[in-house]
Order: sequence, then structure tokens, then C-alpha cells
Amino acid sequence: MKNKVSDKIRVKRIPDRGHYDQKTVHDILDASFLCHVAIGMEKHPVVIPMAYGRKDHFIYLHGATKSRLIQFLEAGNECSIAVTLVDSLVLARSVFHHSMNYRSVVLFGKAEKVIDLEEKIAGLEAITNHILPGRWEEARLPNEIELKATTVLKISLEQSSAKIRTGMPKDEKDDMNSEYWAGILPILTTFGKPESDPELRSGIGIPSSLQKLS
Amino acid sequence: MKNKVSDKIRVKRIPDRGHYDQKTVHDILDASFLCHVAIGMEKHPVVIPMAYGRKDHFIYLHGATKSRLIQFLEAGNECSIAVTLVDSLVLARSVFHHSMNYRSVVLFGKAEKVIDLEEKIAGLEAITNHILPGRWEEARLPNEIELKATTVLKISLEQSSAKIRTGMPKDEKDDMNSEYWAGILPILTTFGKPESDPELRSGIGIPSSLQKLS
Repeated sequence: MKNKVSDKIRVKRIPDRGHYDQKTVHDILDASFLCHVAIGMEKHPVVIPMAYGRKDHFIYLHGATKSRLIQFLEAGNECSIAVTLVDSLVLARSVFHHSMNYRSVVLFGKAEKVIDLEEKIAGLEAITNHILPGRWEEARLPNEIELKATTVLKISLEQSSAKIRTGMPKDEKDDMNSEYWAGILPILTTFGKPESDPELRSGIGIPSSLQKLS
Repeated sequence: MKNKVSDKIRVKRIPDRGHYDQKTVHDILDASFLCHVAIGMEKHPVVIPMAYGRKDHFIYLHGATKSRLIQFLEAGNECSIAVTLVDSLVLARSVFHHSMNYRSVVLFGKAEKVIDLEEKIAGLEAITNHILPGRWEEARLPNEIELKATTVLKISLEQSSAKIRTGMPKDEKDDMNSEYWAGILPILTTFGKPESDPELRSGIGIPSSLQKLS
């Protein structure tokens, strides 16, 4: 299934890198947990990093009820959200053709506040388990006070597009036989060894969400 | 030296995490090469990932002269830029107190187009060597046509602030003795093994910038 490719979401620079099918967008969103949210606050652009989750064709955000950003989004102001994964540096023979291999999603939309309590809890679960699968089942669930202090927002992925670059550098023909090295340098993101809180009650082992990672 | 802490750059959510000295801001910017640039294009916020470099108290961006984003920035429209490094997941006993350890910089400003040719080349060198130290010295430098096709912009770091979280989860007193595991899960970003372009002329070895990494 594809998003309707409006002029707003169509990739303009290097259109061959644009993708509009839901699966490509979802796969990129599911491979990260950090997004950058841009708003036009008091007419000035502001960009802020946030955690997110994905469920169906929606992205979920959460924050303190008192947060200015959350309140601004909740009021129905437009936002733009980017998720970017850099897979490798693309090192060309010429400085000019240096690039990166990446997978990114950019979306536009208005946030909708999740009012229904069941959906709100499901949204928080989606965010928690998006960051670390299974973590929701291993921690003390939010109580009434904590739920009241938290706002959950969802934004449709209808106006989203993906942009992907893969492969080797594209150098000028005249440079192909030059003395300069060219290739790619992979960038790897991995989890290190979990460190237990020194104040942890004795006898508590590493939970299964973390054991599954190593 | 500190930035003047205007209301615009002061960290509002959890003010203890705010830092305003130049060294902290520079150190975070020097530890990454990917930023997210937000603009208010046609009154709608747009956020786009970009490579950057830092030199003195400026951030440098570059892009195709024809790029709409570059032209919009060049016209003196305000932007906001974020750089975010996630160091670990903070896994608390309660879902509510889950967090991340991170180092981030958010800045506001207007881009200035670099006209002077010497400064333009220095800006491109700063961006290239910021991504991979020493790479500028190992590739074919930009020619006149390539320089004409590229715009270099600089943005002052005067209106910038850093936000940092470190350390273990901060759980509720009542949860400290509960059955739930708590701690941090480090996130590591490393370079993989360089892959040479299959079309590379024979006899060209891995350059020193890459050898230094391993």
C-alpha cells in the first residue's frame, strides 16, 4: 500500500531515492527510536529530539503534560518529524561526490491527543517496547498519577516519505582511474553490556529483554 | 566562555540538564556529523537531516546551489538545528521513569552564505574533515564547476545550548526495593571494516584516515 504522493512529501533532491510505500516507511521507523520533531513556535522553527513508537500507520509520542512542546502539538499545530539512520560513509575519489548511505523518513502532520485510557496505555506500551522489545512486561506499569502527568499523542503517517541511499560512490568518469581510494565505511550501532543500578535489590538478574540482545 | 542565556535557548524541561558554555556545545558538536535542520517553509515546519562541520563558534552546512532548503536558508530565514547523541537507555523500575542518557545541542539562527572563495573552501574542508578527520587530504579537491554547484552556509553558535543526562534511573522511593531490574544499557556507535569500491584501480591501499580508526 502506498501513501498518496502529494507535492509536499515527494522527494525533490535526487528523486530516485524516494520511496512511498508503507512497508519501507514502517521498516525504517521500526529500526530506530529517536526522532526529531520540528514545530513553528511563536513563528520561529524549533527542533527537538524525542523518543517515539510506531503502531499501524501512526507514530506515537509522549511527554509531560506540562511540556510546552507537548502542549503546542496538542493544540493541533503542524509539525514535521524526521527519523534518520546513517548506515555508512560514502568516501568518493573526489571530495564533491562524498556522501552517506542512509535510510530516512520525513513526515508532516498534526498530532492528535490520545484521550481513551486503553489507547493511551497501548500508546505508552508501543513507545516502551519500540525502544526495547519486551520492556513493558518487565517494569512497574504507570499508575493513575503518572498517567495523568503524561500526554500521549499520535500522528498519522499518511503524509510520510522515505529516502534511501545505498551502494558505492558515484565518481566522475575522469576520476575513476585516479590515485585516490574510494569505498564505504560502515557505521555500526550496537548495545553494550547492561550495567545494573548499584542500588538494585540483591538477587535480581538481568531481564529477558536484555538477554535477548546479546 | 558562555553564551548569553536568553529565554529562547534556556532549557525549560528539567533545567538542571542545561549547559551554556562553549566548550560543552563544541564537544557535543564534534562528536557527531549529522544534524537535523528545521525551517518554516511556506509557513509549515520542515525538518531535514544534513551533514555539518564546526569551526570556531560556527556550524557549517553545504548543499547543492539548486536545493530548495539551501536557497531558503540562504535567503536569511530563521532555522533551528539539533544534534543528538544517545549514549544509553535508562531502564527504570517503573515504566514512567524510563529515560535516555544523551548529549544534545539545539541552536537557533540565520544562515550566512559564505561568499569568499578561501573561506568557502575552508568550510568544505571543515565539513569533510569533521565527518572523517584527514579525508580532505586524501581525495580530489573540488574544481571550479563543483565549487559553483555548491553553496556553503555558516550559522553562529551564539544562540545554542546543550542538554545532557547521565547516570542511573531515578525511581520513586517506593519502587526501590521492588522486584524489577533497573540499570542502563549502553549504545555504542563504531565504524566497521572499510569496503573498497570494486571499481577501484588496483594497487591502491586503505588510506591513513581509515587506518587510524582501527
